[in-house]
Amino acid sequence: MSERVYCGQLTEQAIGTKVTLNGWVQRRRDLGGLIFIDLRDRSGLVQIVFDPEGSTEAFATAEKIRSEYVVEVKGEVVARDANVVNEKIATGHIEIRVESIYILNGSKTPPFAITNEAEVSEEVRLKYRYLDLRRPVMQETFKLRHNINKAFRRFLEDREFYEIETPILNKSTPEGARDYLVPSRVHPGEFYALPQSPQIFKQLLMVGGMEKYYQIVRCFRDEDLRADRQPEFTQLDIEVSFFEREAFLAMMEEMMVEVVDQVRGEKVAPSFPRLTYAEAMARYGSDKPDTRFGMELLDISATVKDSGFKVFASTVETGGQVKALNVKGQAAHYSRKNIDELTEFTQRYGAKGLAWLKIEAGELKGPIAKFFDETAASAIKAATEATDGDLLLFVADKPKVVADSLGALRSKLGKDLGLIDESQLNFLWVTDFPLLAWDEDEERYVAEHHPFTMPKAEDIEKLKTDPGSVRAEAYDLVLNGYEIGGGSQRIHKREFQEQMFQLLGFSQEAAEEQFGFLMEALEYGAPPHGGAAFGVDRIVMILAGVSNLRETIAFPKTANASCLMTQAPSPVDTKQLEELSLAVTYQEEVL
Amino acid sequence: MSERVYCGQLTEQAIGTKVTLNGWVQRRRDLGGLIFIDLRDRSGLVQIVFDPEGSTEAFATAEKIRSEYVVEVKGEVVARDANVVNEKIATGHIEIRVESIYILNGSKTPPFAITNEAEVSEEVRLKYRYLDLRRPVMQETFKLRHNINKAFRRFLEDREFYEIETPILNKSTPEGARDYLVPSRVHPGEFYALPQSPQIFKQLLMVGGMEKYYQIVRCFRDEDLRADRQPEFTQLDIEVSFFEREAFLAMMEEMMVEVVDQVRGEKVAPSFPRLTYAEAMARYGSDKPDTRFGMELLDISATVKDSGFKVFASTVETGGQVKALNVKGQAAHYSRKNIDELTEFTQRYGAKGLAWLKIEAGELKGPIAKFFDETAASAIKAATEATDGDLLLFVADKPKVVADSLGALRSKLGKDLGLIDESQLNFLWVTDFPLLAWDEDEERYVAEHHPFTMPKAEDIEKLKTDPGSVRAEAYDLVLNGYEIGGGSQRIHKREFQEQMFQLLGFSQEAAEEQFGFLMEALEYGAPPHGGAAFGVDRIVMILAGVSNLRETIAFPKTANASCLMTQAPSPVDTKQLEELSLAVTYQEEVL
Repeated sequence: MSERVYCGQLTEQAIGTKVTLNGWVQRRRDLGGLIFIDLRDRSGLVQIVFDPEGSTEAFATAEKIRSEYVVEVKGEVVARDANVVNEKIATGHIEIRVESIYILNGSKTPPFAITNEAEVSEEVRLKYRYLDLRRPVMQETFKLRHNINKAFRRFLEDREFYEIETPILNKSTPEGARDYLVPSRVHPGEFYALPQSPQIFKQLLMVGGMEKYYQIVRCFRDEDLRADRQPEFTQLDIEVSFFEREAFLAMMEEMMVEVVDQVRGEKVAPSFPRLTYAEAMARYGSDKPDTRFGMELLDISATVKDSGFKVFASTVETGGQVKALNVKGQAAHYSRKNIDELTEFTQRYGAKGLAWLKIEAGELKGPIAKFFDETAASAIKAATEATDGDLLLFVADKPKVVADSLGALRSKLGKDLGLIDESQLNFLWVTDFPLLAWDEDEERYVAEHHPFTMPKAEDIEKLKTDPGSVRAEAYDLVLNGYEIGGGSQRIHKREFQEQMFQLLGFSQEAAEEQFGFLMEALEYGAPPHGGAAFGVDRIVMILAGVSNLRETIAFPKTANASCLMTQAPSPVDTKQLEELSLAVTYQEEVL
Repeated sequence: MSERVYCGQLTEQAIGTKVTLNGWVQRRRDLGGLIFIDLRDRSGLVQIVFDPEGSTEAFATAEKIRSEYVVEVKGEVVARDANVVNEKIATGHIEIRVESIYILNGSKTPPFAITNEAEVSEEVRLKYRYLDLRRPVMQETFKLRHNINKAFRRFLEDREFYEIETPILNKSTPEGARDYLVPSRVHPGEFYALPQSPQIFKQLLMVGGMEKYYQIVRCFRDEDLRADRQPEFTQLDIEVSFFEREAFLAMMEEMMVEVVDQVRGEKVAPSFPRLTYAEAMARYGSDKPDTRFGMELLDISATVKDSGFKVFASTVETGGQVKALNVKGQAAHYSRKNIDELTEFTQRYGAKGLAWLKIEAGELKGPIAKFFDETAASAIKAATEATDGDLLLFVADKPKVVADSLGALRSKLGKDLGLIDESQLNFLWVTDFPLLAWDEDEERYVAEHHPFTMPKAEDIEKLKTDPGSVRAEAYDLVLNGYEIGGGSQRIHKREFQEQMFQLLGFSQEAAEEQFGFLMEALEYGAPPHGGAAFGVDRIVMILAGVSNLRETIAFPKTANASCLMTQAPSPVDTKQLEELSLAVTYQEEVL
């Protein structure tokens, strides 16, 4: 068999050659006694012409053909007449004069047109995913995804990382998100868990002397799904021994630069900017700020603490903050009603209210303007660099509420006002995350990253006195406001790991039962090691310019974790449950 | 940070340079006032010398060091004195004169020595897998596995295959092996199943116009485990549209040749030999024959059907077969007791007995010799090409029993007698498998390959009249007596797929419920497609020259599907089961 020829790759250079093409019929037109077919394959479209003066058999077949029929066509590549050249498609200067055509398979009329513009609900697209995937935009996305994976792999392989596979049937550990469980038939009443990440295994590979590991691996979380979560997701997982943090971060930057270059031909500047967690929260109210636009959070606590506006003053006095956003030049475009909507928006993030001021002819305007004398007004204008036409928005509250609400408001306004330069790819490291977070419900510390993260050397003393203030040797990589990955130095000594489990409220027995094998491993010459994990689905989403993870996954689940095509999950045979020594306790209510 | 320097890569070219090394202490020797340490990393060993006349601090540290300590060493590469050159290791001409050493982590005495020769049970190795993985032979295996995966990927990527990921949380289908189930929390009483292979999804990717797909993917089977099975295994999964069988097989051959060349530097001849299933069974009694040695099964049914030995004659008369192995030159080495053991061995495969003859001075010898007159004796000798000193072994039975028992006996004798040239890699295609197999227990046909396999065009008529004789467009790839992969042309028309489910005893409702989405997909322009899947673990096993799949998997399960390191599977919290609306019905018996 000769090399496959693709429809979309035929150019004027092929004129005069005979080709055999395979593909789908995009559309058929009957015009001036001729039949025209646009034939589509993975590479694009080409026009096929059937002339009754040519092969009558082919012409007769062509009369039967409808959209999405699969055909094999043999014919000659010829130049189009100048007046019918189509500049919109790559093959628009040529067409195929058919010698023979063979229908490989027919097609019912598809439930939607196989075009990028098809107007169709996501539900129907997911049910007929095999048709949805034929649309050129989907073909492009999966080609991109393939190229991203390939670029990651080649970068790491060139640096002597070994791809090593870790188990999917794991032990369940209660720490972290909810596990998907797999009942064991051989061990009745016992369960495997699907991995939330290969974290412990990759650390054990380091203890096992593998030194440089990578894997593009499926991970699982049984969470209530949000728009940007899937029950199974793909992670680029990396771990290295004997590597210093700076060298590692530099390598990861180089990797991202290389991937973007490979798949988009764009040169991103290496040496990504860095923010500490504290700074990111202060300036953007977020640990994954979108730095494609400014409009940072401005702390005016000191400016307003002695002002006449009691709400501000007393907030500062009681340990709170007052911060502002300066929405440049937008005063005229925000009515009271608009601002009420913004207020409601910030309240979802816990803010009690949203104060505002407009600057007109050098003066503060708005309901709270009267509380500020001229000195205070000047100070506010100076602190916010506000000038005529600007809209100032304020939240006065506990630092967390200020950050959450103004951070979210900043993101919303950035989008609403078109402040974001969509052509940019802004990578950013956020460093020095807190080691621990206080869980109000459980009344204990939980690991901010995971329980195997090393504290920063200079904070270790505070583990005993003030654990909440200890920073971790952990960092996230942020791209355009999305967290696309994170990593840390790991604990490689047993004493530290034990201390960490104590801080997290584990009894010695519980720590031993859950993680005894890891702690034992740390006693046998565990090397210093660290690593990172990157969310492949999310990286594809951003680089493809789509807004939903489902667009990046060939067969995704819906928000309630179902597959609309196969109808998974589904009931199973009683026999299967019996073999697993399980009974379903749920009774559907009789209506 | 400068580029990492590896212990095992230092040669005489590095003499005079200063290096920083990281690794594990293989052993320490104190000799003539000096301390010697063999330092090991992923690449190999190098000798480090501590001289008390040099750095006293380093010497003092060295005195504390024990096996498997992790250290960082700085020093100078120097030539060894000629009389202490060690030709056994790659770095035996040099050593490191230490300037400083830093202990990164200590180690308890490991439960076994970190050497290839360590005498240790597999149980202990699996419990301390992180130590086992440090042994050089394991490091080599995982480097090989990495290189095999890499070679597969690059071959396919260079031919424009897209790597596309398919779901792990699937729908359970009762056809085939037992599924691992995953209870759904959101849909109480419903379950996902882990995939036994991505078969249906890869076919739907072809319907979706992806044209060339590959994935190195985890698959799962909840089977009672044998020595060469694991509950999770890795498959190289491939599917293509618009490809003729011969072109596809040629590409797969080229891929295997390339992989062997990449990872072993060996040139295997392309155009692998082919046997039909019928021929493989006839000549080797196996559908995965080891062709590294001869000793084929010889059909002497015609020769003995009129002989005086009633057992043979009546077997042939009633539709059975008589076949022989000629064990060349081994007559003198097999006593009656030895042959009794072989008889017992064949009985495990269903044979009622094993008849035998020896050739001495041109005469048949043995208990059954008397039944053959001179003509019959000559005919047997001619049919088996037997000469003096040969041992002939016979099974007379139904064809399946003859094939199973003599096939197994041939394999056993091949190993026992050292007939196998271990340096060879004998690839072989076995083609024209039966489409269906009769399941005695279920009293119905089951798919020999899977229910989506296309029958051979010339046999389609027989689907209605004699389904058992229909051959499939299916083939296996065999390497050194192991099935390492298989593939087929798939059904791409709904009518055929429906007919196949009928043959397999599915009611229309059952077929619709389980596979309705696939049959619907075949109605919307499904292209002709086919593909293959290869067992990565098994390929690694053969190319690494190890005899057990567990040696090729970083963290394998035992024969009862447990992980001895993490103790998975394990009981889970009641709360987890409640969330899943499940109860365990198994009660441990009180002793």
